[in-house]
Amino acid sequence: MNKSRLEAFSDGVLAIIITIMVLEIKMPHQSSITALQPMLPTFFCYALSFVFVGIYWGNHHHLLHVVKHVSSGIMWANLNLLFWLSLVPFATGWMGENNFATSTVACYAVLLNICGVSYTILQHTIMACHSLSPNILSALKKQTRKGIYSLIGYTSAIGASFITPVISEILFVIVAIMWIIPDKNIERAIND
Amino acid sequence: MNKSRLEAFSDGVLAIIITIMVLEIKMPHQSSITALQPMLPTFFCYALSFVFVGIYWGNHHHLLHVVKHVSSGIMWANLNLLFWLSLVPFATGWMGENNFATSTVACYAVLLNICGVSYTILQHTIMACHSLSPNILSALKKQTRKGIYSLIGYTSAIGASFITPVISEILFVIVAIMWIIPDKNIERAIND
Amino acid sequence: MNKSRLEAFSDGVLAIIITIMVLEIKMPHQSSITALQPMLPTFFCYALSFVFVGIYWGNHHHLLHVVKHVSSGIMWANLNLLFWLSLVPFATGWMGENNFATSTVACYAVLLNICGVSYTILQHTIMACHSLSPNILSALKKQTRKGIYSLIGYTSAIGASFITPVISEILFVIVAIMWIIPDKNIERAIND
Amino acid sequence: MNKSRLEAFSDGVLAIIITIMVLEIKMPHQSSITALQPMLPTFFCYALSFVFVGIYWGNHHHLLHVVKHVSSGIMWANLNLLFWLSLVPFATGWMGENNFATSTVACYAVLLNICGVSYTILQHTIMACHSLSPNILSALKKQTRKGIYSLIGYTSAIGASFITPVISEILFVIVAIMWIIPDKNIERAIND
Repeated sequence: MNKSRLEAFSDGVLAIIITIMVLEIKMPHQSSITALQPMLPTFFCYALSFVFVGIYWGNHHHLLHVVKHVSSGIMWANLNLLFWLSLVPFATGWMGENNFATSTVACYAVLLNICGVSYTILQHTIMACHSLSPNILSALKKQTRKGIYSLIGYTSAIGASFITPVISEILFVIVAIMWIIPDKNIERAIND
Repeated sequence: MNKSRLEAFSDGVLAIIITIMVLEIKMPHQSSITALQPMLPTFFCYALSFVFVGIYWGNHHHLLHVVKHVSSGIMWANLNLLFWLSLVPFATGWMGENNFATSTVACYAVLLNICGVSYTILQHTIMACHSLSPNILSALKKQTRKGIYSLIGYTSAIGASFITPVISEILFVIVAIMWIIPDKNIERAIND
Repeated sequence: MNKSRLEAFSDGVLAIIITIMVLEIKMPHQSSITALQPMLPTFFCYALSFVFVGIYWGNHHHLLHVVKHVSSGIMWANLNLLFWLSLVPFATGWMGENNFATSTVACYAVLLNICGVSYTILQHTIMACHSLSPNILSALKKQTRKGIYSLIGYTSAIGASFITPVISEILFVIVAIMWIIPDKNIERAIND
Repeated sequence: MNKSRLEAFSDGVLAIIITIMVLEIKMPHQSSITALQPMLPTFFCYALSFVFVGIYWGNHHHLLHVVKHVSSGIMWANLNLLFWLSLVPFATGWMGENNFATSTVACYAVLLNICGVSYTILQHTIMACHSLSPNILSALKKQTRKGIYSLIGYTSAIGASFITPVISEILFVIVAIMWIIPDKNIERAIND
C-alpha cells in the first residue's frame, strides 16, 4: 500500500479548498475603485483562510513524509481532516459577508478548533502504527505544543468575539504568524 | 500502458466532486447563530455524501492496485463510474434543500444504486483482463457481497422514502458505517 | 525536460472541465419527480460533453505517451487545446438551457470543430519534433482519419442545426460512438 | 524533502485558477447568436488571463526544475505567488463585466504587477539556497530582464487606463506575446 494516491487526493482537495474561496468573493456591480472598499473585510478573510489552509498543507506534507504504509485508519483520519477543512470556505464567506459579526467569528473559531483536533487525530493515528525515530518524535512533540497554543488562541477568540471581534481577528493573525515562522526541527529530523 | 494517469485523473475528479458539494451550501443572509439551524439537513446531506464519495475513493484505490495494464474497456468503465458519481453533488443538494422530500430521497437512493452497479462493472472489467491471485479474488468476492448488501439497503431506502424519509436516511447511514468499518481482507491480500 | 508536469496539469484541467459542467445544472426548486423532466435536455447535454471530454482525455493520454521531451511549442499547443476545451461547459450549458435552439447547437458544433483542429495541431507539433516508429505513425494516421470524419460530422451538424437540431444531436452521438469503439491500433503500436 | 508535492499542489491550484475563470462567464439568457456579441469583451479577458496564467505555469515549471530541496522559505514564497494568482479570476471578471472601465483595467494591471513581483521573490528565494550553474544563472537573468520589461508594460498600462483603456489592452497583449515567443535559453541551460 503506497501513499502516493493519498497525497495526490489530499493535494487535490486542499488545492480546490484554497482556490474556491475566491469564488465566494462576489464582484461589485460598480466599476469605480471605491466599490472595492466595502470588500476589504472579505479580502482579509480570504487571505487569512488562504494562510491557514496553506499551513495545513505544509504540515500535512511534513506529516505524511513519515508514513510508510497507509492503513484504513490513516485514510479515514485524513478524510475526516479534509471534511472539516472543506467547510472553511463556507465559514470564511459567512464571516466576510457579515463584517465580522459575533456569531460568524465564533463559528469560524470553532471550525478552526475542530480542524486542529482532526489534525491531531491524524497525527496520533500515524504515530500509532509507525515506529518513529526519536528525532522525528521530538519534532512532532514540538508541533503538538504549537497545536495546543493554537487551540488556546482559537478558544480565546471565541470568547473575545462576544466582546469585540477585532481581538479575535488579532488572535487569528498571531496564531497564523506562529505557524508561518519556519520550524526547522521537523525538516532537520526528516533529513537526518 | 501505465495506470498512473488513470489514477491521477480519477483522483482529480473525485477530489472536485467531494469538494464542490460545499459550494451547494448557500450561506445564510443573517449573521445570527440561529440562522445555521435550518441548514442542518443540508450539512447532514453534505457529510453523508462526503463519506460515500470517500468510500468510493478508498475502494477505487484498492481496486486499481491490482491493475497492471489499462485497456480501453477499463478506461470507459472508469469514466462511467466517474460520470454517475459526478451527479452526486446535484442529488445531494436537491435532497438537502427540500428537507428530505420523498422524491428527492428516492432520487438520491437510485443514484447510489447506479453508482454501485457502475463500480461492479468496473470491477468485473478489471477482473476479466487480469489473472488475479486467489487471495485477491476472495477479497474482491467479499467486497461484492458488501456491494449486494448496499444495493439491498439503497433499494429498501427507495421504498422507505414513500413511508417516511427518516428510515431511508437511517439505511444510508447503516450502509456507510458497514463500509467504514475497515475491511482488512483486501489490504492483506494485496500485501501478500 | 520531463513531461510529468504537463500530464499532471492537463489532467487537472480536464478533470475540472468535466466536473464543473455539473455545476451548470441548476437544481429545480420543486421537490416532485416531475420537476426533473424539463431538465432532461440539460442532462443529455451534460452526458454528451462528458463523453467528448472523456474521449479527449483518452486520446491525450495516448498521444503524450510518445512524447519524450516537452518543447515550448508542445506546451503552447497543449494550452491552446485546453483553452478551447475549457469553453465546452459554457457551450454545453447554453445549448441545454435553450432546448437545442439552432444558434446554440451551431455554436456547440463550431466549438467541437475548433477543439478537433487544436488536437490535430498538438499532434502535428509532437510529430514534428519526435522521430516516431512506423507502427505509431500508422496508428496516428488512422486517428487522423477518424478526426477528419469527426470534422465532417460536426460541420454537417452545423448545417443540420438550421433544419432541425435533432439531426445535429444524432450526428454528435454517432461521432462519440465512433470514438468510444476501442481503437486497438495505437495501444498495440505503443506496446510494441 | 522532495519537491513533487509542491509541484502537484501548484499544478492543482493553477489548473483550478485557469479553469474557474470560465465559470465567471454568465450564459446569455437569449438563444440567438447575437446574444454572444456583448460577451466579446468577457471572452477577450478570459483568453488574456488564460494566456497569462499559462505563462506563469510554464515559467514555474522551468523554475522548479532547478530546485533540489524545498525549504519553508520556498514553500511560502510559492504560496504567496499562488495567492495573488488566485485573485486573477476576480480581476478578470470585474474588468470583463464593466467593459474595460478605467478602474477595473488599472486594478487588473496592479494585480499583474504584484504577481510579477511575487514571482521574482520566489525566484530569488530559490536562487538564495541553491548554487546554480553559470548557464542557468544567465538564463534566469535573461528572464529577470523580461520580467522588468513586463513590469514597465503593466505600469504603463495603469497610466494608459486613465487616458483610454484600449492602449492598456494592447500593452497587455504585447507583454503576453513577449513571453509566448519561446525562450530557448532556459531550456538549453537545463538540458546542459
